[in-house]
Amino acid sequence: MTTREDGRAVDELRPITITRHWLDHAQGSCLVEFGRTKVLCAASATEGVPRWRKGSGLGWVTAEYAMLPQATHDRSQRESVKGRIGGRTHEISRLVGRSLRAAVDYKALGENTITIDCDVLQADGGTRTAAITGAYVALADAVAHLREKGALAGEPLVQSIAAVSVGIIDGTPMLDLPYVEDVRAETDMNVVMTGEGSFIEIQGTAEGAPFVRSELDALLALAEKGCADLTRLQQEALQA
Amino acid sequence: MTTREDGRAVDELRPITITRHWLDHAQGSCLVEFGRTKVLCAASATEGVPRWRKGSGLGWVTAEYAMLPQATHDRSQRESVKGRIGGRTHEISRLVGRSLRAAVDYKALGENTITIDCDVLQADGGTRTAAITGAYVALADAVAHLREKGALAGEPLVQSIAAVSVGIIDGTPMLDLPYVEDVRAETDMNVVMTGEGSFIEIQGTAEGAPFVRSELDALLALAEKGCADLTRLQQEALQA
Amino acid sequence: MTTREDGRAVDELRPITITRHWLDHAQGSCLVEFGRTKVLCAASATEGVPRWRKGSGLGWVTAEYAMLPQATHDRSQRESVKGRIGGRTHEISRLVGRSLRAAVDYKALGENTITIDCDVLQADGGTRTAAITGAYVALADAVAHLREKGALAGEPLVQSIAAVSVGIIDGTPMLDLPYVEDVRAETDMNVVMTGEGSFIEIQGTAEGAPFVRSELDALLALAEKGCADLTRLQQEALQA
Amino acid sequence: MTTREDGRAVDELRPITITRHWLDHAQGSCLVEFGRTKVLCAASATEGVPRWRKGSGLGWVTAEYAMLPQATHDRSQRESVKGRIGGRTHEISRLVGRSLRAAVDYKALGENTITIDCDVLQADGGTRTAAITGAYVALADAVAHLREKGALAGEPLVQSIAAVSVGIIDGTPMLDLPYVEDVRAETDMNVVMTGEGSFIEIQGTAEGAPFVRSELDALLALAEKGCADLTRLQQEALQA
Amino acid sequence: MTTREDGRAVDELRPITITRHWLDHAQGSCLVEFGRTKVLCAASATEGVPRWRKGSGLGWVTAEYAMLPQATHDRSQRESVKGRIGGRTHEISRLVGRSLRAAVDYKALGENTITIDCDVLQADGGTRTAAITGAYVALADAVAHLREKGALAGEPLVQSIAAVSVGIIDGTPMLDLPYVEDVRAETDMNVVMTGEGSFIEIQGTAEGAPFVRSELDALLALAEKGCADLTRLQQEALQA
Amino acid sequence: MTTREDGRAVDELRPITITRHWLDHAQGSCLVEFGRTKVLCAASATEGVPRWRKGSGLGWVTAEYAMLPQATHDRSQRESVKGRIGGRTHEISRLVGRSLRAAVDYKALGENTITIDCDVLQADGGTRTAAITGAYVALADAVAHLREKGALAGEPLVQSIAAVSVGIIDGTPMLDLPYVEDVRAETDMNVVMTGEGSFIEIQGTAEGAPFVRSELDALLALAEKGCADLTRLQQEALQA
Repeated sequence: MTTREDGRAVDELRPITITRHWLDHAQGSCLVEFGRTKVLCAASATEGVPRWRKGSGLGWVTAEYAMLPQATHDRSQRESVKGRIGGRTHEISRLVGRSLRAAVDYKALGENTITIDCDVLQADGGTRTAAITGAYVALADAVAHLREKGALAGEPLVQSIAAVSVGIIDGTPMLDLPYVEDVRAETDMNVVMTGEGSFIEIQGTAEGAPFVRSELDALLALAEKGCADLTRLQQEALQA
Repeated sequence: MTTREDGRAVDELRPITITRHWLDHAQGSCLVEFGRTKVLCAASATEGVPRWRKGSGLGWVTAEYAMLPQATHDRSQRESVKGRIGGRTHEISRLVGRSLRAAVDYKALGENTITIDCDVLQADGGTRTAAITGAYVALADAVAHLREKGALAGEPLVQSIAAVSVGIIDGTPMLDLPYVEDVRAETDMNVVMTGEGSFIEIQGTAEGAPFVRSELDALLALAEKGCADLTRLQQEALQA
Repeated sequence: MTTREDGRAVDELRPITITRHWLDHAQGSCLVEFGRTKVLCAASATEGVPRWRKGSGLGWVTAEYAMLPQATHDRSQRESVKGRIGGRTHEISRLVGRSLRAAVDYKALGENTITIDCDVLQADGGTRTAAITGAYVALADAVAHLREKGALAGEPLVQSIAAVSVGIIDGTPMLDLPYVEDVRAETDMNVVMTGEGSFIEIQGTAEGAPFVRSELDALLALAEKGCADLTRLQQEALQA
Repeated sequence: MTTREDGRAVDELRPITITRHWLDHAQGSCLVEFGRTKVLCAASATEGVPRWRKGSGLGWVTAEYAMLPQATHDRSQRESVKGRIGGRTHEISRLVGRSLRAAVDYKALGENTITIDCDVLQADGGTRTAAITGAYVALADAVAHLREKGALAGEPLVQSIAAVSVGIIDGTPMLDLPYVEDVRAETDMNVVMTGEGSFIEIQGTAEGAPFVRSELDALLALAEKGCADLTRLQQEALQA
Repeated sequence: MTTREDGRAVDELRPITITRHWLDHAQGSCLVEFGRTKVLCAASATEGVPRWRKGSGLGWVTAEYAMLPQATHDRSQRESVKGRIGGRTHEISRLVGRSLRAAVDYKALGENTITIDCDVLQADGGTRTAAITGAYVALADAVAHLREKGALAGEPLVQSIAAVSVGIIDGTPMLDLPYVEDVRAETDMNVVMTGEGSFIEIQGTAEGAPFVRSELDALLALAEKGCADLTRLQQEALQA
Repeated sequence: MTTREDGRAVDELRPITITRHWLDHAQGSCLVEFGRTKVLCAASATEGVPRWRKGSGLGWVTAEYAMLPQATHDRSQRESVKGRIGGRTHEISRLVGRSLRAAVDYKALGENTITIDCDVLQADGGTRTAAITGAYVALADAVAHLREKGALAGEPLVQSIAAVSVGIIDGTPMLDLPYVEDVRAETDMNVVMTGEGSFIEIQGTAEGAPFVRSELDALLALAEKGCADLTRLQQEALQA
C-alpha cells in the first residue's frame, strides 16, 4: 500500500476534531479541525428573511467563507483591504451555502434566516470541505436554539451534510488531501454528501492530465467512505 | 421516449452553429449558438506573459465570461455599474480559463498570452458550456495566427475541449438543457471533456433532491455523447 | 474631389445596416452597422419609473453604452474588472440617454421606463453616433410593444433621432469618420438631429488647431446631410 | 430689450473677479468668481510625465474638477464617500483638461506635468466655464514659475483660453447663465475659445425643444462676445 | 524663553481669523484660519434624522473632513479618484463629529440633522483643530437659523467647543504647531475642550520617544490656555 | 468599594490568557484573551521593506485589525463584502501599528518588514487594547525567529508595549471595561504604555459629560497600574 507523508492509509481521514460552542454570541458555533486545517464556523439565527422571500412562509440559509491573512504559509492580502472579494472566495461561499441549504426544509424553518460564517484560521488543504462539515454542526446548534425558543413549527433539518476532498497523486486515488498532497494532485475533487450517502455536489477538476472514467469511479468510492466517517464524527459531536 | 418541449430526443443537442471570424480585430473569434443561446468568443494573442511567469519560457491562457444586460429575459444590471463582479461571473470565468488551459502545452506556446473573452449576447441555458465550446474554436484560430507569424516553436494545442450540460428533469436524465428545462432540473451538471473522451471538469449539483450513483452514471453517459457530438462540430467548423 | 481611403465621397456615409429583432428577449433590438462598426442596441420596457418620478404620471428613458473588450484593435480591460466605469463610457451613456429622451413625450409614455443598452461589439469609429441611431430604432420597437399591450395612452414618440460624426482631415471637412480618419482629424464633431432637421446636441472639439467659424459651418452642413440620410434608413428599417 | 432678474443685458457677463495667488503651495492659483459662482483653481508643476509619455521630450497637462458638498443649494454627497466619481464630474474634468491642453505647446513645456485642480466652493451656474477661465490663469502662473526656475526651453503657452455659457430662455439667447436661468433654459451651450477668437470646444444641448440653425448662430455670436470680454479680464489679472 | 521660527511665545496661538457667512447656501459657514491653515466649515440643517433615529424625538449631528489636493506642499491624490477614503480622513471626520456632538442637546434639537463639512483649502499644521474650532461657529449659525425658522423647542447648544494642538519640540512643550514644528515634534497631542474648560477629547501620541507624566501635564496646561483663547475668539466672531 | 457585575475590584484586570504559537505558519502568534474578548495575533516577517523605504537600511512594522462577523452580539457585515474598510477599523489598525512601531529600533531590524494581524474572534470590550498587548508578544516571537535565522544585526526590541482601557462608570473610574461597562461609560480612555511606564498613546473621549482634570488623573493612575500588570503577564508568557 502507498504510504503518505503523514503515514495515513489512502482511504483514511486526517485526525478530525469538532469543538462545539467555541463562541459565546453565535447561536451555533464550532471549531472544526481536519489535521492542521482549522475553520471557525458560526451560525446566527435571525427572525425574518430577505426581502424577495418575505411573506412566503419559507426560511433562508446563507453562508460566507473567508480566510484570515495569516492562515496560509505566506500571508495573503485581506479582501477588505483590496476592496473586493476574490473569485475563489465567492465560489466557495456559494458552494457552502448551496450545500447547507440541501439540509433544510424551508417550510419547517419558517421565516427565519440562518447565516453561517466559515472563517479559516489556519489552512492546510481541504478548507472548503472542513467548512461544510463544521457548518452543518453549527447549523444544527442554531436550529436547536430556535427550537428551544419555540420559533419552529417542525423539523427543518432533513438530512446531515458532510464534505471531503479526494485526489489522484502519482496515479493513486487518496482521501482528504493536506496542502502538500493537494499541490501535487493530478486530479482534485470535492464531494458533498448527505448522511445517508446521496450526492449533493461533485466538483472534479483535472489539474494535470485529464482523468478517465475508472479513475472517477475510484475517487467517488473514496469520497463515499470519507463522508460516511465524517457523518459519524458529526453525530458524536452533536450528542456530546 | 420522453418528449421535450422542443421535440428533441433526451440525448440530442440543440441546433449548434459556430460562425468563425465574426470579428475583424481579434486573432480568433466565433459566434457560437446552442439553440437560442448566443455567445461571442474572441481570442487575442499578445507577446509576453504576466509578471509572475516571465522568463519561464512558458505561455499563458486566461478567460473572461460576462453577460450583456439584455441577454436574459429580464434585464440585469451591468457589473461595471455595480462596481463589482458577481460570484457567478467569477466562477464561470475561472471555469472557462481552467478548461481551456487543459488544451494547451505552455512550452510550445512560448511566452505568449492568449486572452479569451466569452460574452453572452443572448442566454437560454447552457451559456457556460457554449462559451467553453466556442472558446476552443477561437483559441485554435488565435494559435493558428501565431503559427503563421512564426511565433511558435511547436504545437501548443494538445487536445480539443468541449462542454455540455446535462440534468435530470422529472426523473429523466437529459442532454443540453435550455432555460425552461434548466429551471426545472432536480440535478444539473456541467461536464468538460477532451476530444478523446477524457474528463477535464465535472460540476454536478443537486438543485432539489440529492442524486444517487446510478443517476450520476446516466448523466455522465449523456455528457460523453454530447461532448463527442460537439467535438465533431468543432472539427467541421475549423476545417471550413 | 478628395478621395478617401475607402473611396467614399466626403459627404457620403459608410454602408449602413440596421438589423431589427436581433435579440429574442428585449422588447426592441437591432444590430446597427456603420461600416465595420457594429453596435447591438436593445430596449427593454418595464412598468414603473424611478423613485424620484413616482406618481408624476410621466415615463422615463435611460441608456447605457459599453464596449466589449475585444471590440477595439488592442483588447481593452473590462470596466467590471477595473471596478469602475471610465469617464468616456459615462460621457457617452449620458449623451445617448439625453438624445433619446428628446424623442419622447413622457406624458404619453405614462409611468413606464425604457432602458436602452448599446453594446459595441466592434469599433471602427463613430460608435456613439451608430449607438444613437440604432437606439432610436430599438426604442421605436419597444414603444410599439407597449402600444400593442395597450400600456400607452397616446403617442410617446414625437420625433425621430439620428446622429453622425463629422471632422476635418487635412483641411477637408468629411462625413462619418472611420477609425483611420478619426485619429487624424484636426476637428471632430458629433451631431445629433431630429428627423425634421433640428439640432439636439452638438459636440465639437478641436483635436489639433482651433477651428474657425467657416469650418464649423461646413461641418454642420455635412452633418445635416448625413442625419437626413440616416433618418431615411431608419424609416426604411422600421417599415420593413 | 429683455430684462434679466439681475438687471444685466442679454450679452453682459456677471461681475467677474480673478484673485491670483490665493494659495501658498501651488505654483499657480486663483479664486475665480462669475457672480456667486466661486471656483478655486490651482496648478502644480512637477518634473516628469506619465509613463506612456516618457522619453518623448513632450510635457503633459491634466485637470480635475470637483464640487464641495455644500457648494450647491442642497448639500450633495461626497464622491469620495460614494466611492466613485459621477459621470458629470468625469465629463467636466475631461473638458477642462482638453481645453487647457489646447493652450500648450508640449515641446516647449518639455517633460514637465502640470496638474490643474478646479474645486467649486460655491455653485451658481457656469461652474465649468468659470473653471476653464480660471484654470488658464493658474496655468499661466505655473508656467511662469517653471520659466523662472529655468525649466523651460521655449514658450509653452501658444494661446489663451476662456469659456462661457450661453442659452435660450423664453426664446431669447442670453450670455453667462446663473442657476435660476440655467434651469429654465431651453437650450444650453458651453463654448471654449482662444484669445484670438477661434473655437476649441462647442457643447450645445437642447434641454427642451430642439434648436434650429438661426438660434445656434445667435448663441455663437453671444459666446464670441463673452469670451472676448473674459480674455481681456484674464489679461488684466495676469498683468496686475 | 525658546524662540520659535515665527517669533511666537511657546504658549501663543498663531494669528486666528474666523470669517462667518463665507458661503451663501449653507445655513452656517465660516472660513477659519490658524496662521496659513485655511479650513472652510459649512453646516447645513435638514429636517429629519437618519433611519435608525426616527421617531426618537432626538436630533443628529455629523461631520465630514477632507482636504483639497493642492492644500498640501505636494499635491495629493483625490480620495474620490482613489475610490476610497483614507484612514486619516476617516479618523478626523469621526473626531470632528464626536467633538461637535458634545456641544448639543439632541432633545432640544428635535428631529433635525446638522451636517458639518470641513474642507481644508490650505494645510499648515493643525487642520483638525482648526476644523473643530471653525465647525463650532458654523454649527452655532446653523442652530440660529433653525431657531429663527421656529424649528427648535429649546436651546440645543449646551456648551461651546474648541480644539488646539500641542507638542514637544526639542524637549520644549509648545502650543499650536505649524507644519515645520509638527514634523519635528517628539510628542503630538490634540485636545478638544468645552468653553468652560472641561475635556471632550485627548489624543496624544509619542512620535519619537515615549513621554512621561510631567510632560503630559505641561502639554495639558498649554492646551487649556490655547482653548480658552480660542473660545474667546469664537465668542467675538459670533457676536460680530 | 464599588462592586462590578463580575465581582472585580475597580483596579483589577479581567482574567488574562496569552497562548503563544497558536498558529503553525506565522513566525509569531498568540491567542490573547481579556475575559471573553479573544484576539488572534499573528506576526509574519518578510525580507525587504515597502518601496518608499528601500535602501534606507531601516525595517518596517505594520498592523491590521479586523473583526470576524460573528465576534459581536449581533452579526456584523464583512468589510470585504461591503467593499470598503470602515472608519473604526482603519483607526484601530493605525493605532496598533503606531503603538508597535514604538517598540522597535528600525536600524537593528534591518530591511525586514513585520506585518501583524489582529483578528478579533470574539468581542467583549477592550478589543483594541487586547490586540496591542497580544501583538507585542507575536512581534517578540517574530523578532526571535529573525534572530535565529541570523537576519538581524542587533536587538530591534527597545521596549515592551501593553495597552488597557479605563473609563468612568457612574462617576467611578474603573480598569479594563467589558462590553456591559463600556456602553455605560461616561468617559472612555485607551492608554498604551511601555514596559517601563512611559506613555505611547492616550486616547480619551467624553462619551457623556465632559471630564475634568482630576478625573483624567484618576484614569491615568488606573491605566498605569493595568499596563504594569499586563507587562508582567507578557513577560511570563514570553518566558514560558
